[in-house]
This record gives sequence, C-alpha cells and structure tokens, in this order.
Amino acid sequence: MAEDSFTVTPWEVSGKIDYDKLRRDFGTGAIDDGMRERMKKICGSLHPMLSRGFFFSQRDLKLVLDDHEAGKGFFLYTGRGPSKAMHIGHLVPLIFTRWLQEKFKADLYIEITDDEKYLFKREYQWEELQAATRDNILDIAAVGFDPERTFIFKDSEYVKNVYPLLLRTSRKITHSTVKAVFGFDESTNIGLSFYPAYQAVPTFFEKRRCLIPCAIDQDPYWRVQRDIAESLGFMKTAAIHSKFLPPLQGVEGKMSSSAGLETSILLTDDEKTVKNKVNKYAFSGGQPTVEEHRKLGGNPDIDVPYQWLSILFEPEDKKLKQIHDDYRAGKLLTGELKAILIERINSFLKEHRERRKKAEKEIDSFMYKGKLAKEMWGRTYY
Amino acid sequence: MAEDSFTVTPWEVSGKIDYDKLRRDFGTGAIDDGMRERMKKICGSLHPMLSRGFFFSQRDLKLVLDDHEAGKGFFLYTGRGPSKAMHIGHLVPLIFTRWLQEKFKADLYIEITDDEKYLFKREYQWEELQAATRDNILDIAAVGFDPERTFIFKDSEYVKNVYPLLLRTSRKITHSTVKAVFGFDESTNIGLSFYPAYQAVPTFFEKRRCLIPCAIDQDPYWRVQRDIAESLGFMKTAAIHSKFLPPLQGVEGKMSSSAGLETSILLTDDEKTVKNKVNKYAFSGGQPTVEEHRKLGGNPDIDVPYQWLSILFEPEDKKLKQIHDDYRAGKLLTGELKAILIERINSFLKEHRERRKKAEKEIDSFMYKGKLAKEMWGRTYY
Repeated sequence: MAEDSFTVTPWEVSGKIDYDKLRRDFGTGAIDDGMRERMKKICGSLHPMLSRGFFFSQRDLKLVLDDHEAGKGFFLYTGRGPSKAMHIGHLVPLIFTRWLQEKFKADLYIEITDDEKYLFKREYQWEELQAATRDNILDIAAVGFDPERTFIFKDSEYVKNVYPLLLRTSRKITHSTVKAVFGFDESTNIGLSFYPAYQAVPTFFEKRRCLIPCAIDQDPYWRVQRDIAESLGFMKTAAIHSKFLPPLQGVEGKMSSSAGLETSILLTDDEKTVKNKVNKYAFSGGQPTVEEHRKLGGNPDIDVPYQWLSILFEPEDKKLKQIHDDYRAGKLLTGELKAILIERINSFLKEHRERRKKAEKEIDSFMYKGKLAKEMWGRTYY
Repeated sequence: MAEDSFTVTPWEVSGKIDYDKLRRDFGTGAIDDGMRERMKKICGSLHPMLSRGFFFSQRDLKLVLDDHEAGKGFFLYTGRGPSKAMHIGHLVPLIFTRWLQEKFKADLYIEITDDEKYLFKREYQWEELQAATRDNILDIAAVGFDPERTFIFKDSEYVKNVYPLLLRTSRKITHSTVKAVFGFDESTNIGLSFYPAYQAVPTFFEKRRCLIPCAIDQDPYWRVQRDIAESLGFMKTAAIHSKFLPPLQGVEGKMSSSAGLETSILLTDDEKTVKNKVNKYAFSGGQPTVEEHRKLGGNPDIDVPYQWLSILFEPEDKKLKQIHDDYRAGKLLTGELKAILIERINSFLKEHRERRKKAEKEIDSFMYKGKLAKEMWGRTYY
C-alpha cells in the first residue's frame, strides 16, 4: 500500500486516512467555525467531540438546525450490528448522540441490526449472535439515553411492524446500486443484498428530518437513502460524521473487535487488563529514551494515549492543553501520559459498569414500555 | 414463435406446451401407471386430475408414499400471490391439494405471498394488494380444507416468526443463482431477489418431507430449495406438478388474470357472464357448420369446453367418455357441449359462493385459532 493510500468502506477501514480528501471524495460538507458557533448558541455549550473537530463532516446539518429553530424539530437515528463484546470505540458515536438528544430533546431510534452480521458470515449461529445482542443492548442502554424518548429495537423483532415499508424501500434499490455502493458481486447472498433496505427504514420513522451521528465509513448507506427518500415521500436524511477512534497500535485504520483483542479496550476489560494493554500496545509519540524525550519532547499528533484523551477521556480543554504542551516540551513522559490514560479509562469503565447494572431495569422502557417505544409497537409502516 | 416452441417460467407461460419435453427439460419424474396404482391402493380412489394425467410430473413422490407407509407422514404446502380477483384456474391445484389432505390427513401450509406482487411491480399500492389478499383468502378457505390441520398465513404477518430462518435460507442463495433460475438482472430490485428465500421457508416447517402440489411453472423455486435444503439440515421438498388449465381462447399458454378478462372465468362471474364468455370466447374443436359437424365430428383434444370438463367439471369417467365419443361422432354439437359446460361452471360457482360465505367464519381458525394455526403462532423458526 502506498504511503498516502487509505480505504474507507462500511466493511473496511485501513491506512492513514486523509479526512479532508475523504470528505471531498464522499461529497459531504465540512463543519466550519460558523456552524460550530451556531450550535453553541443553540445548545449553550459544545461537546468536545465537536469543538475539537472529531465530528468533522456533515450532510444537511444546516437544514437540521433550521428545522429546529423553526420549531419543526428533527429526530436522531443510530444503530449497532452485534457480533461480539463491545469496545470503547463503539461507544463514541453513542456518547455524542446522547449529548445531542439531551440538548435538542429529540426522539432517538437505535436499530439493533441482529440480522447484519448473520448475513455477512455463514459461520455465525443465530443463538450466538442473539447472546451478543442482549449483551450489547445493555452496554448501549448504559450510555444513558432518555427512556421516554428512545426506542431500541431488534430488526428480528420489529420486522413485522416495518415489513411493508421495508419492501417499498427495497423496490427502489437495484442490484447495480448495491454492487456499486457496497461492492457486492455475483457470489453475494440475496439476504446481504437486501439488508441495506432495512438500514434505510428508520430514517422514515417520522415525517421530520432525520439526523444520523455516525463514523464516516457508514455514509454509503445514507447516500442510498438520500437517492430514494423523496420518491418515497420522505425526507433525505441528514448526517454528522466522526473520524475513527484510533486503535491502540497507532493512528491508522479504526478500532475493530475482529482485528485482535490487543487493538482495543473492551468494555469488560478489568483494571489490570487495561493497564497492561495501554502500557504494552498503545503507540507512543514519545522518544525512545527518557533523556531524548526530555530533550526533544513527544509528538501528541501520533500519540494514541494523547489522541484518546482528546477524543474521549479529557473533556476539559485547559487540562488537555496542559498535557499537550507538557508532552510536546518533554516535561511529561510517555509512561506518565499512559498512566493518566489508564486512570481515566478505568474510572470510565467503572462508571459504565455501574450504569450498565442500572440499565438492566431500563431495557424494558427502551425496548417496549417507554413512551416512544409503546407508540412504536402500536404502529405499522407502509 | 416457431410452431413447436413454448416458454414456461414462473413469470411467463406461452405457446403450445409439449409436456413430455418440458418434464425432460426440467428433469422431473413422470407419474406412471405403477405410481397411480400405488396411490389408488393407499387412497381408496384416484382423483380424476391424477387418473386423467392432468397431474403428470413429480419429484420424490415415491419417497413421500414410502414415508407415509412407514408411518413418518409428510406435510403439504401450497400458496398464492394475491393481486387481483381469482379465476377458476387458481382453484385447480387447491382442489387437488384438498383431496390429498383428506386422503392423507396431512398438515397443510398455505403461504399467502402478499409481498410477491408488490415487489414485482412498483405501481402496486400496499393497501390495494391487501384488499385483494383478504378477498383471495376467502376464496381459498372456501375450497374446504381441514381447519384444524391447515395454516393459512400472510408473509407480512408471519414474518417475525420466520425471520431468522428466512435469513438463514437467504445466506445460501447467491445473486448468480437467482439470475440463472429466475432471469433476474442488474436492474432487478433487491426485494424481488430476496423473495425466493421466503418461498422456500415453509418447506422447512416440519422435520418431515414436504409435498408441493403446483402447476409445473413453479418448479424453479423448488429446484432452488432442493439445492440448499440438506445443507440447512432439512429435507429436499417433493412436488407433484400439473399441466395448465387452458384459457378460453385455446389450449396454448395458461389462464391469466393479467391477460384480459375474456380468457378466464372469475370466481365472481354471474350466470349470464359465464354464459356469454363461454359462448363467445371458448375455443371449439367443432366444425364451422352443423352439417359439417354432423358429418365430420368435433375434435375434443383442442376443444376448450371438453378440456375443462375433463380437468375440473366432469368427475365421472363414464359421462366424460360419453361426451367425448358423442362429440367426436358429431352427435353432440358445439353449442350443446358449451351448454353442458356453462351449466357445470355455474353450479360450481354457486356452490363456491355458498362455501365462501361459510368460510368467513372459518378464516379465524385457518389463520389464528385452529389447532395447527395456534401451534404455528407459538413457534419461531431458526
């Protein structure tokens, strides 16, 4: 692979990603200072993932804010295709989505695509994936959404309520489209080809604009939605795209459960495991020896512990700047920076596990009994 | 089209069909005298559609009878994709299926594919097809199946119970298969490509052999099923195939609601309409004038009224033979033969409409409350 080449599709993220080029290739809009100012004015504050440029790209975000200010409102949609235990990277868009829901008091739909991975690999057993699904739903619920304004649903359970709309959506998508957009071919199974229609369906749940917070690799799905939405009598979905949380080994590609456990921190990792993984695997921008580090300083731009603090674990700008400057100046050593991250991850995971326990009681609201969930089970979509 | 060319696919039946050639092309077995004798011995009698060769082809029928005699039993499966009002041709396989159910006391699954036509044509509105579906289900129930041993279900309603199995089935079917078998191409929508998986699913409802009575044009679906069934842990389905009830205009092609109302007798046609249609459109094997007919006689082989009597409306062999011989000898005139058919159709339709009224009360048993239906709603298929 050439030094500057990279790949970003829903199935593969690799290489050193040039996010500006990616945005131009995908044809999405930037998030500029003006847009950030406008959001800050509406929300009272800016989430660090926005102010620090981790969410860096969008489609129709301006129209979403227009709709909000005109009193029409909008709704949020995100999802998860369960196959294994979740890692910290999976929580990133969910944490940002929770912030958006809180600030905009928006309805939120979380599609648990328990069909997706099953269609992708013949080796998967249904019951195995259902176990992962139950487990993942708990982790998602633990993020802390509004139980009255959030509907978490499994594709396999909610399919009867959306089947006519799912068919109507699928009528608009041809073989050639899924070949071009997802790289499917003659050997692709007919279930996998059909599946993109189900990902589009929740964008039609309300007659308002949908906003999807997601990593940029999911954008191809929304391009298909935007091509067909209006001819079905719905609105084109808006989206706000993040970069990828880098894997422990370095700032290329994205964290992935299938790439080996040492690239990611699982939500179930205990304190010792976290400590070992960070110390052993986290790519450092520091110098080989303490002496050189003191003299030359470290490079936070390629330092995974620093990047993780910036994206998720150090919300206070002042503290982050201090760490950045000290590290660059050689005052802060690699081991010290890693120690800060380890402490932050472990306290984050401790809280997550406590919220996860509490969430067990809320699952019923999110999936069946909350205000939005109850409404949704009473509906059939055509 | 050359004189001897014909087309038989699930989407098109045209030309003068050479059924022996078709059977060889499709690779199905014949139904020979030995097989008929065996069935007669088991059933006590033979349905005229069997004894007269209207059901002429089969796959694994021998194994079905073996299973029956070994006490393992088997189950029946048939279906209907509603779009418009039903005609007499649609009842033919159902009437034969009822006979099989009665003789073998077999469970019967009737899949109402309310998704099929919707996927096939973008012009269809969901509600329009649902109205046709309700209407068609009543006509099907009127055929007189056993309410405790029959489950009539709509794809859109039962989808939740079969979704995992539907996905598992779809994983085994590739784009290239549906292209080769059904002639799909790049412009085919992803819903239509996915759909054949749902037609296979009911063949997996029991861990016994499935027997599908159907017209021969449906065989491609079962070929796909037979290719994948065993790798999914199920049995290859058996089938028993009929010829087509010829349209009024002549013995080519098959009766079709989309080909124009004058080719078929609708179940809703009143006595006068039936009389007019038969007199005006039914292709006759008789001579142009009474004089010539008396002298030369008629040809029952190409005479649609005679064919209809043979297939559906004259169960008594002796009476049919009399009609045949009198017609051939010129003793029976075209108008007289048509009058016999008109009387038979009208009395059949009168009875059908009475049974249809009675069936309104039975719908609930067939679909939800009967012994088999209740069992099926309690199940999820993986």
